[in-house]
This record gives sequence, structure tokens and C-alpha cells, in this order.
Amino acid sequence: MAVNAILKIPVTTITKGESEEHTDAIAIEEPLEIRLAHGPGVARKVQNISVTMRTPGNDAELACGFLFTEGVIKNVSDIKNAEHCFIACAENRENVIQVSLAENVVPNLQNTERNFYTTSSCGVCGKGSINAIRTISNYAAYDLETDAIIADVLTSLPAKLHQQQKVFADTGGLHASALFNLDGELLLVREDVGRHNALDKLIGATLLQNLLPLNNCILLLSGRASFELVQKAAMAGIHIIAAVGAPSSLAVQLAKEFNITLAGFLRGQRFNIYTVPRRILAITNREHENSY
Amino acid sequence: MAVNAILKIPVTTITKGESEEHTDAIAIEEPLEIRLAHGPGVARKVQNISVTMRTPGNDAELACGFLFTEGVIKNVSDIKNAEHCFIACAENRENVIQVSLAENVVPNLQNTERNFYTTSSCGVCGKGSINAIRTISNYAAYDLETDAIIADVLTSLPAKLHQQQKVFADTGGLHASALFNLDGELLLVREDVGRHNALDKLIGATLLQNLLPLNNCILLLSGRASFELVQKAAMAGIHIIAAVGAPSSLAVQLAKEFNITLAGFLRGQRFNIYTVPRRILAITNREHENSY
Repeated sequence: MAVNAILKIPVTTITKGESEEHTDAIAIEEPLEIRLAHGPGVARKVQNISVTMRTPGNDAELACGFLFTEGVIKNVSDIKNAEHCFIACAENRENVIQVSLAENVVPNLQNTERNFYTTSSCGVCGKGSINAIRTISNYAAYDLETDAIIADVLTSLPAKLHQQQKVFADTGGLHASALFNLDGELLLVREDVGRHNALDKLIGATLLQNLLPLNNCILLLSGRASFELVQKAAMAGIHIIAAVGAPSSLAVQLAKEFNITLAGFLRGQRFNIYTVPRRILAITNREHENSY
Repeated sequence: MAVNAILKIPVTTITKGESEEHTDAIAIEEPLEIRLAHGPGVARKVQNISVTMRTPGNDAELACGFLFTEGVIKNVSDIKNAEHCFIACAENRENVIQVSLAENVVPNLQNTERNFYTTSSCGVCGKGSINAIRTISNYAAYDLETDAIIADVLTSLPAKLHQQQKVFADTGGLHASALFNLDGELLLVREDVGRHNALDKLIGATLLQNLLPLNNCILLLSGRASFELVQKAAMAGIHIIAAVGAPSSLAVQLAKEFNITLAGFLRGQRFNIYTVPRRILAITNREHENSY
């Protein structure tokens, strides 16, 4: 895989309440727009088929594989070539790829129009996406604050979630999103086969109960923290996100821009803090506080 | 969570090569179409906003949460009600939900048109989706066969994948799809933050090398087996899928209809077979074979 699949960033690791600064690697997540050029001569046209959040690398394979597995093309001979198109935004990264079909090939686009489904929002570069979220979020301003919590509160959360994950216990097949107060008491859990659905259910429940914004809550994600999940949390005014799994690069970037504390790899007495560490008090900080 | 989040099905468990039949629970995965009714009086209209693959239960929360986190609505007061619409297909399940907005509310649909992105195909019910795949797949016919493999070949795969997952080793944040031959030799690995992208990259690579169909290969998925992943595998003519995680109900249903052997929970010397177990030879079968 290409070298740009990994980003090294500064991370605070908390182990049994003790904090340590170091550098860690996270997986890069960026949008890829797939364009399709098809038709003969002057009737040839270019259409935007899909935008997917992916790790850069093997983009031509991804685009051709997507068109094939979704039934848009039938054979390798349908493809003339697949090339990146450079665009002005996206910091010159290769986030648009165009697949050109042979002139006589008619792609099965009826199927894409009827059957594809949408899952989340993004622009063609992370920067555009983050700006778009800022304009539509009620709570993106920095005037809501959240009290700091002690590190032990975070490490106690996965066990509390696990006790409540009834369907996961039976099937091993569900993602969960859980909401806790700043003392670490469980308020609400939602489960789903789709991680974005579990979070939409959780935020939908709080919306319908008129509990937003959730700036005095901690969001726990049972898996990884993607851009999409951080975006949804930002929309609900959440300022502390803890994930059992790893974060992606765009998740970290969005959390940073929205002043969200993002913790990951929450396992046993240990976790990492990727952004805004001041809201999580390690032993060192607390001793410092007590000395005044 | 509602009782219909779980489905009990017959499963073959292989432990150290010994096979045992029993009943196990899997998480239900079904499509939900989210419709939005908005506008005043005679100008009121209903639009299809999104279809998402979800676990049934808390659908009103899911729909309202989705509309809120994607910026379509701003406040709980925008919502008049959210109700299921029964449709003729989908075996009478509640797979369409309509959110009605208050008459004076103008939803932010510009954002959905510009920023939502598509990830995969499905109809509004699993049955419709499966039929759609049958019509577009090159390899959905039953005339391609795949030789049986011994159970030990499957249990050896995760360790071989793990050795090759360079980016995962550094970040803990990537899904992988890997292709093996029927002797368990690793042919190809692709990694991505999105599990559907990892598989599209893998199938795209084989398409571009003109290696399709892949009926003499085993596909290993590093995580769970969803409908979407089984669909993509079916399009490439894959007949044996092994997942480290759990399968969803619709993944099992699609595998069954497409004559695909689907194994899950591949951990150590143990795994489950959900469909077409005859292609995996347990010790019992092999002894039986040797006796002739």
C-alpha cells in the first residue's frame, strides 16, 4: 500500500492515570470521487457516480472494482483507462478518479440511480466537508464548554456499555453508541449493524426528548472513530468522544477543528487522547490541581 | 431493543476439525427507506431522502437523528411526526419510515443533494435487492463449482492475513479483504478504512488482471460479513467467504440464495458455517470419505 496510508501525529497516552506524550500512526481517511466517462464521439459525457471515504492507494482498483461489483460495468474490456483528475481543493491530493469506458460500452446506470443509497455527507476534500459542517451545525461555536473529567471515568465506560449490549451479547454482530454523563453514569445505549445508524438512533432519541446540545455528556463508540461519526457527534454538540477502536485521520482533523476531545483505543486501564487533552485529567494534572 | 433485532438460525460449528450442528443468533440487517414530507398545503410533497441498511428498532429515532445530524432539520420542533409506511414488498416488515415536518419548516435539502454520497446498492427489501443482484451478476448462475476444502485451511487464514496487514499493524485502524487459493495460500490483500472499499480494491485488482470469476478462491474478511460485502463477492463469482467477525441476517440470506459458503467467527481452531457447509470438510467427513 502507498506510503500515504499512514499519518503520524502527536498523541497523549494515559496508562493507569499517568500521562505520556509520544507520536503515533493513524490510518488516513479521505474522500474519493469516482467519475465515469462514457459514450461515443460528441455524445461522450462525464458523470459523478459516487463519493466514498477511503484510505488513499489502489484508487484505480477501487474505482474499477466499485463499478464492477455494483453492476455498472460487466467486463475488464469495458474499461479504457482509469486516471486521477487533479482538482484545486483537497491540498493537491488525488481525490478524484475518472474511469473512461470504451466508446461502444453502455454502462448500466439505471441500476446506480435506482439502487444506490446514501449514507453520509462529505465534499470532495476533507477541508470542504469540515467547512460544510460548520455552516450547518447549531453547536459548532466554541461558546459551549464541557467540564474536565478524570481519566478513570473514561476507562470505566466500556464495561458499563458491555453490560447493556444485549443484542451484541447474543450475536457478536452489532455496533453500539452510548451516552454517559461526566461522572460516567450510563444514560442511553443504541445498537445497530451500521455504526452510523447506532449513533443516529442515539442522537435521534436525545433530539426527540429535547436534550440537545449534549456538551455535558461523553459519547462512547464500540468500534473505530471515523469522520462520519465525529461529524454526527459535532452536530449534537458533543465535546468528549471515546472510542474502543482506532480513529481515522479525518476524524482527528474534524475533532481538532471543532474543539472536541477525541480518545481512542480505550482498553483496560489505557487509552490515547488525540485532540484537546485538557478535558481529561491524568493523575499528574490532579496532583497539580490539589497542590493549590 | 425490539425483539426483531435477532434471528435464530441453524449453524454448523467446527472446533478443531470436529463438526456440530446447533442453533445460533445473528443480528438482523434490513434496509430502511427514510422519506420526508414537507411544505405547506397543496405544495406539500414527499421525497425519498435515503436508504440505509439497519437493524430494525428505534426507526423513528434513526430517521430523525439522521435528518438532524445531516443538517436537513435544525430542531425537534421542526418534526410533526415520524411513522412507518407499510409497503407491499418486504414481507410486511416496517422498512419505510416517513418523517413529516411542520408546515412552515423548510428543510435544508440542498445539503443532501450536494453532499450525500452513495456507498452500495439495495432495494427497499432484501428480496428485491437479491433479485436485482441476480439480474446484474455475470456469475450468479449455479454452473460454476468450487472444490471442497478441509476445515484446517480456513483456520489457518487469519494468521496469514495478519502477517501481511502492514498498515493495520501500525494503526489498528484498517479493514482488510484477502484472497487465498483453495490450499490456503495468500494471493492478494487490500486494506482500507472502509470495509466495502477494501473489497472493491481486491476485486478491482483481479478484474484488471482478468482473473474473474474467483470461484476457485477463498475470500477472508477481517471483520463482520454484511449484506454489502456478500453482494460484492457474489458479483465476482466467489463461492467461499470466511469472516473473522459475525454475519448479518441479510448476508446469510444472500449467501444461501447464491450458493455461497459463508463462515464466520473464525477464531483459533473454531468457526461457524452459516450456509452451504458441504464445501468445508470436517474430520468426520474426511474419515467418511476415507472409508470408501
